[in-house]
Amino acid sequence: MSHADLLLTGRYLLPGSQQSGLLENHGVAISGDLIAEIGPIDTLRKSYPDATVLHSEHGLIMPGLVNTHTHAAMTCFRGIADDLPLMTWLEKHIFPVESRLTSEMVYQSTLLSLAEMIKSGTTSFCDMYLFAKDVARATAESGMRAWIGEVLYDFPSPCYGQLESGFNYIDEMFSQYRNHPLISVTVTPHSVYTCSPELLRRLGEIADTEQSLYHIHLSENAAEVATCRERYDTTPTRHLDNLGLLKPNTLAAHCVVLDEEEIGILADRGVKVSHCLESNMKLASGIAPAVRMLDRGVTLSLGTDGSASNNNTDMFGEMNCVAKVHKVYSMDPTVMSAEKTLQAATLGGAAALGVEKEIGSLLPGKKADMIVIDLDQPHLTPLYNVPSHLVYAACGGDVLHSVIGGRLVMRNRELQTLNEDVIIGTMRDLAAKILAF
Amino acid sequence: MSHADLLLTGRYLLPGSQQSGLLENHGVAISGDLIAEIGPIDTLRKSYPDATVLHSEHGLIMPGLVNTHTHAAMTCFRGIADDLPLMTWLEKHIFPVESRLTSEMVYQSTLLSLAEMIKSGTTSFCDMYLFAKDVARATAESGMRAWIGEVLYDFPSPCYGQLESGFNYIDEMFSQYRNHPLISVTVTPHSVYTCSPELLRRLGEIADTEQSLYHIHLSENAAEVATCRERYDTTPTRHLDNLGLLKPNTLAAHCVVLDEEEIGILADRGVKVSHCLESNMKLASGIAPAVRMLDRGVTLSLGTDGSASNNNTDMFGEMNCVAKVHKVYSMDPTVMSAEKTLQAATLGGAAALGVEKEIGSLLPGKKADMIVIDLDQPHLTPLYNVPSHLVYAACGGDVLHSVIGGRLVMRNRELQTLNEDVIIGTMRDLAAKILAF
Repeated sequence: MSHADLLLTGRYLLPGSQQSGLLENHGVAISGDLIAEIGPIDTLRKSYPDATVLHSEHGLIMPGLVNTHTHAAMTCFRGIADDLPLMTWLEKHIFPVESRLTSEMVYQSTLLSLAEMIKSGTTSFCDMYLFAKDVARATAESGMRAWIGEVLYDFPSPCYGQLESGFNYIDEMFSQYRNHPLISVTVTPHSVYTCSPELLRRLGEIADTEQSLYHIHLSENAAEVATCRERYDTTPTRHLDNLGLLKPNTLAAHCVVLDEEEIGILADRGVKVSHCLESNMKLASGIAPAVRMLDRGVTLSLGTDGSASNNNTDMFGEMNCVAKVHKVYSMDPTVMSAEKTLQAATLGGAAALGVEKEIGSLLPGKKADMIVIDLDQPHLTPLYNVPSHLVYAACGGDVLHSVIGGRLVMRNRELQTLNEDVIIGTMRDLAAKILAF
Repeated sequence: MSHADLLLTGRYLLPGSQQSGLLENHGVAISGDLIAEIGPIDTLRKSYPDATVLHSEHGLIMPGLVNTHTHAAMTCFRGIADDLPLMTWLEKHIFPVESRLTSEMVYQSTLLSLAEMIKSGTTSFCDMYLFAKDVARATAESGMRAWIGEVLYDFPSPCYGQLESGFNYIDEMFSQYRNHPLISVTVTPHSVYTCSPELLRRLGEIADTEQSLYHIHLSENAAEVATCRERYDTTPTRHLDNLGLLKPNTLAAHCVVLDEEEIGILADRGVKVSHCLESNMKLASGIAPAVRMLDRGVTLSLGTDGSASNNNTDMFGEMNCVAKVHKVYSMDPTVMSAEKTLQAATLGGAAALGVEKEIGSLLPGKKADMIVIDLDQPHLTPLYNVPSHLVYAACGGDVLHSVIGGRLVMRNRELQTLNEDVIIGTMRDLAAKILAF
């Protein structure tokens, strides 16, 4: 007889993003970090009599959400400055405080973000920031699955100092996490306007050698495009393509300003896109042509961006905006359906990270990354269609349990791997210091 | 010594929508249905030693949210059909089920909506639907403050039958609720495309006589404008103005399709607008020129519309969308600031209902309508700016307590006036019947 450590069972189980796949009174048998079996509750209980059972009478079991573009440690700047012109916001508020960041601040701020992400249903994220070793250290403690990269650019970094030290820094990170079950290291050039072609290429070679993601901000707004045109006489997307850096392992965040030909280039090269709509709205960057990207076959995933420009990491809120904004943007209520949006936040995210065979849906043999939604609430009643509720009515606070890599990281909204009270208290002290900068 | 029944105290108190007004370690002394005093916690405790104290260590006390356009009973259709062309959605899904509505279904569905609204921080709402007596009956049980109207149009109604009976129906409602402390009856023509000029005018006379709101859908989408042009050779806004029906007691929901001159007309006539952005997005109706309306001095409030087109009544989600969508729509991150958005959801809502001297902010002598937000959560940490958190990071689930007209209607997320379990259970049974229609 096969073995299972944990049976997660509930009223409904949605293995993917399709309402047609909804199963009633089903559960997941988890063995180690993998899904052993999916089946009716009674069958699983008979097959795995020794497993611990966590049953949710009104629970919906579904794949954990995948957030493909974060700056987790920016939680410490949440709400410090809003509603400002982009350059004022960056130059007067964000850059000055970022320049004084320390590894300890990044570690503590990342812990806060991890707590927030777990509590709102995210089980995997892809992060780009400074002091990435500390992001990884905090993440390892939390039990979350993550892709983490130290951001490199042409100027000195508050983290590693001169650029050459940056290469040592990421080399050490690759060595440290090469066999980690949950953490993957990425190569992370900041953007085409802050990285020379030489730096972009050299990082591309490292990504090839390490077989890692190449995670970059791309074509976020008109100013980026104008700068690139001035400097290289072409658009950011074409510039990166000319350098041979648009490839299947390229994860391009934002992709707001794209012409039709550029969408075709992204599709042809197999580039993955992280669509960060709420951030793009708040900073008035524009609306990425996500519907056209999907139509052309681009792999679309969703990202919240940092908490200074959103200002939370709630992927349910992100889904709600994505589904609705694209409808009104194209004046067509049929586009970006609930199922397509949910797909982008689950299997689309997995595909963007190159791991659609491992996470993003619930199938035997895949990693046991899943959440349970508490359907016993007024705003989720009645229930005709699960993807509709998840996209149009639910919020992060509706997540009851979270399992990542077979480990129960939240149970009845209580974090199991992190001390929420200590994290919140530490951040209150840290915020007072930041204000006194 | 003056008397208070309840002292609501907390870490912070935001009397209006301005961060500059934030008070620390303050509370509200409530006497009957009114705010008796606002002051430091210690002072209040000394002044009112006999009052019941409800203290929230990490609580933010703020005005309750005002939702100025709802169809509360449409909760029973939440998620029954989404992502469809407007006419398919209406004609194949909503109208067929609506035609079979009964007074009992409306009563039960309204109870569900009341539970949802209280749990997400709304303390006042303005409703337009069928079987409005049953909407009012449920609302009276809940202790919520509401403006409620039976929708009238040129064709027979599932509620009152022929149009003349509709006039009797609303006449009875006015009689029944004339002296109710929480419920006001409104005059509610559906729209210019479903009501003849005669009906619109006759209802205007009733609103004048009763000194009530005149609540109407106006210029929701291009199809409405086209129909109006065909029939009356003018736009819905000008048509209503030609009939003399744009007045300070007119509450116009949607106002999506407006030219600059029409915005001026709304401003000049003192018309109040309910901006229902999430519904307008989901149905791809368009984006109302809310920023230009505010610039011209139009009173702007927020509404969620019904749960078949949103699909929740969470005003925090609505604020989040409003602040962000208008930034990207105008490509200017400084418009629709957090404070302006919060204003629209509180005092703007009160002004839209003509009661800005009674509700919408916390001042001695005003009605005791307020909520307490639980700030002790990862996604609301750290705290630099309260309006920013309320608009960009919070959600309905963060509301801890709710007081309406001095009565504690929710305490620690437990409803005090409604039986949530029974309401949810009843709706599950009702949904099964609706599916079998």
